[in-house]
Amino acid sequence: MDPQVSLPVTPLRRRVSTLEEFTALPEHVFPLTTTVDSAGRAALGGVLFTDIAERVGTPVFVMDEENFRARCRRLAAAFRGGHHVHYASKAFLSRTVCRWVEEEGLALDVASEGELAVALSAAFPAGRITVHGNNKSERFLRMAVEAGAGLIVLDSSQEIGRLAEVAAAAGRVQDVLVRVKPGVHVDTHEFIATSHEDQKFGFSLASGSAERAALAVAGTGSLRLRGLHCHVGSQVFDADGFALAAERLLGLWSRLLGSFGADGSGAGGDAGAFDILDLGGGYGIAYTPDQSPLDVEAVAGDLLAQVERHATEIGVPVPSVSVEPGRAVVGPTTVTLYRVGTVKDVHTSDDAVRRYLSVDGGMSDNIRPALYRAEYDCRLVNRVAEGRMVPTRVVGSHCESGDIIINDALMPDDIAPGDLLAVPATGAYCYSMSSRYNMMTRPPVVVVRDGELRTMLRRETLDDLLSLEVDGTV
Amino acid sequence: MDPQVSLPVTPLRRRVSTLEEFTALPEHVFPLTTTVDSAGRAALGGVLFTDIAERVGTPVFVMDEENFRARCRRLAAAFRGGHHVHYASKAFLSRTVCRWVEEEGLALDVASEGELAVALSAAFPAGRITVHGNNKSERFLRMAVEAGAGLIVLDSSQEIGRLAEVAAAAGRVQDVLVRVKPGVHVDTHEFIATSHEDQKFGFSLASGSAERAALAVAGTGSLRLRGLHCHVGSQVFDADGFALAAERLLGLWSRLLGSFGADGSGAGGDAGAFDILDLGGGYGIAYTPDQSPLDVEAVAGDLLAQVERHATEIGVPVPSVSVEPGRAVVGPTTVTLYRVGTVKDVHTSDDAVRRYLSVDGGMSDNIRPALYRAEYDCRLVNRVAEGRMVPTRVVGSHCESGDIIINDALMPDDIAPGDLLAVPATGAYCYSMSSRYNMMTRPPVVVVRDGELRTMLRRETLDDLLSLEVDGTV
Repeated sequence: MDPQVSLPVTPLRRRVSTLEEFTALPEHVFPLTTTVDSAGRAALGGVLFTDIAERVGTPVFVMDEENFRARCRRLAAAFRGGHHVHYASKAFLSRTVCRWVEEEGLALDVASEGELAVALSAAFPAGRITVHGNNKSERFLRMAVEAGAGLIVLDSSQEIGRLAEVAAAAGRVQDVLVRVKPGVHVDTHEFIATSHEDQKFGFSLASGSAERAALAVAGTGSLRLRGLHCHVGSQVFDADGFALAAERLLGLWSRLLGSFGADGSGAGGDAGAFDILDLGGGYGIAYTPDQSPLDVEAVAGDLLAQVERHATEIGVPVPSVSVEPGRAVVGPTTVTLYRVGTVKDVHTSDDAVRRYLSVDGGMSDNIRPALYRAEYDCRLVNRVAEGRMVPTRVVGSHCESGDIIINDALMPDDIAPGDLLAVPATGAYCYSMSSRYNMMTRPPVVVVRDGELRTMLRRETLDDLLSLEVDGTV
Repeated sequence: MDPQVSLPVTPLRRRVSTLEEFTALPEHVFPLTTTVDSAGRAALGGVLFTDIAERVGTPVFVMDEENFRARCRRLAAAFRGGHHVHYASKAFLSRTVCRWVEEEGLALDVASEGELAVALSAAFPAGRITVHGNNKSERFLRMAVEAGAGLIVLDSSQEIGRLAEVAAAAGRVQDVLVRVKPGVHVDTHEFIATSHEDQKFGFSLASGSAERAALAVAGTGSLRLRGLHCHVGSQVFDADGFALAAERLLGLWSRLLGSFGADGSGAGGDAGAFDILDLGGGYGIAYTPDQSPLDVEAVAGDLLAQVERHATEIGVPVPSVSVEPGRAVVGPTTVTLYRVGTVKDVHTSDDAVRRYLSVDGGMSDNIRPALYRAEYDCRLVNRVAEGRMVPTRVVGSHCESGDIIINDALMPDDIAPGDLLAVPATGAYCYSMSSRYNMMTRPPVVVVRDGELRTMLRRETLDDLLSLEVDGTV
């Protein structure tokens, strides 16, 4: 299967308004192996969407393996080694993805017993796993320690004591980071710097509680403080917020080395073991053509240079910088394929009409538009559109008026029941947040590569819906 | 097990501000069988929450069967017969609930193949099922027709043709309603009346498309128009919006009888068969003590009287009025029980502190605070609280700062790790919208009645998380 490329895959930097723009799939939003043939049939990884729909039905998540791996490698190169790049499980997790992450040399972040269990069941090396969470149970901590998790990120005073006991009971010295609230919050391109952060994660830098936590860790005997962690936001597009957070953390770093000794050996471990500065995640991707993805190489280079410069200025050894992109790895690799079921024109005023296209999925497979007012792009992928561009809303099949996938777009008016619509950039936080609302079964996740189609996660069935039903005494 | 009641269960009509208010569980928010003993241990259906936590773990949804059945009976009485009251599956569905709904004589609404399949698997009588949805597939329609679904609500022009063909092919005459947009939208106590409604459901009344749809249905031969349907909103607290929608629909009703003949026999069926006015759902419940639930008897009486008066005025036979409460049946019957894991004080400014209580569930079992900014109440149920009331936020265990259950409340400052918190009014749209975000396993749903504890839906396990994993060619 080698689709002939004739319609160009071109970058667009503004809202789609013409049929030509609608017809050209934006290459910075669709996965890298996307092609379109002269009949307007798009393909991913060498497999036509029309073939996928016929073979596995719709809706379906289609993931481009080559793109996933390429994104891992690009991030690993930009941050000078895959071990500095932690894939965030919460964005999307399956055994297959664990294997890809492992093969590409990245580390893995987990934030629950379930995520840890999936990773371990895929034989992901425990030493490359970092454990997160604001409320890790004793059972979760024990599971992590016993599995040999590389790092556990401590988030509260209670947890320091809890983990110290668990590690001591297991006869281990557990490597840990302390999560710090740096007072820097980044929202896309803007960041705010304060001394307070009203959210649940971490220890406050400004109040001194982060420093007290780090010193407490160093005194436990069963925990070895390897460094500090912070997270500044989501969908971040430049290095400045990260760099400011790093600068603030390095201030604490310097004070801690004053306590631990210049070689950090007082942090509970060997000389030089206090060396990890984990700056968390939030690398932005393009959901719609008017957005540009974060420039990974530029941001990484800028960030690493600023950390190096600042560490040198204050006279501390340059720490090893880790980052946690999840969305930026898997988000752009995946397209959701829907089939149009009904078309309806709705008068929104006496002289304005909005076209409603109903598709066979909805807020159960993508809650982000309803939850975050997230915007997505949407294209016809089974033929060439020829209609007039009209105001269109793409909605799902749920019994709820807020079940909207694309809120407001211009789309050709010849899209009809049976047509296939593709929504790109759905790899992160769509399947992982999916529900069975309205008893809609979860779509499958399929993998395309070199013209081959594989199922990664099968479609849910009625039996799955009923699998939890019991009716008996406890 | 017969807990001694000593602390009163009293109604509160404003925000909780004192320890006494916090200690008294509000009877209009907690299920009707809620009791509290002198040690501050609360029970539901005669079963202590502490016992439930010990026997099935936390988090857990606890449903009060007696309350569920009582609410069905109360609605059935208010609307002059259970067949006028359609339980909305989307709020919460299981085989057990199908059985309760059936036994209490109510009808059942479904809006997907999955919901229909669950109902049929519970042997719910198909003739008492009404089928909804803006995008019913041909397969779904065929399944409904072949099962003998009592009513199918038609939502689009495409669907009229699609269902007519399906019914003809099955050799059936299918009873249907036409869903109408009445141009009335109710949001809690306010309603707006317009001629347009910018949402996906139904046929516009103002544009004449509803009338054309009804006439088209009557002409198919394989469909019998039984009446009209509309839906005005959610969390509605009085009859006025419903009554205005009914008045508008009766205008169309009268015109249609002009076409069908005064006895309605031109609607595709027998004389008098065009007789159902389904006014949909949205009956409000109290989530927090300052809210009052809809007064079912008053609203029902008011609504039925207004419909009767208006039908008489315009000279049409008084239609049979149906309603679709889902939330108002199951919502108030259920309490989510969480265990506190960590407690953290966060400076929100130099002189203000907010306490964060992290519990062992979160946005995977209740997305409504994040999705709709929904507010909930929360009480300590394993002992008497004795602390000072402090600003508190109850958050979940997900790796996301928006994972909030109670955004801003005053709660006693002696709540500590290990304590049990109960969040009432979680019966509707919590479990049914639940996800596996962060690979958190779904909590079980247990039923309490007369001191007995039964599991309705078991807790998900790691095996469930992995049950969809395959990695093979299609």
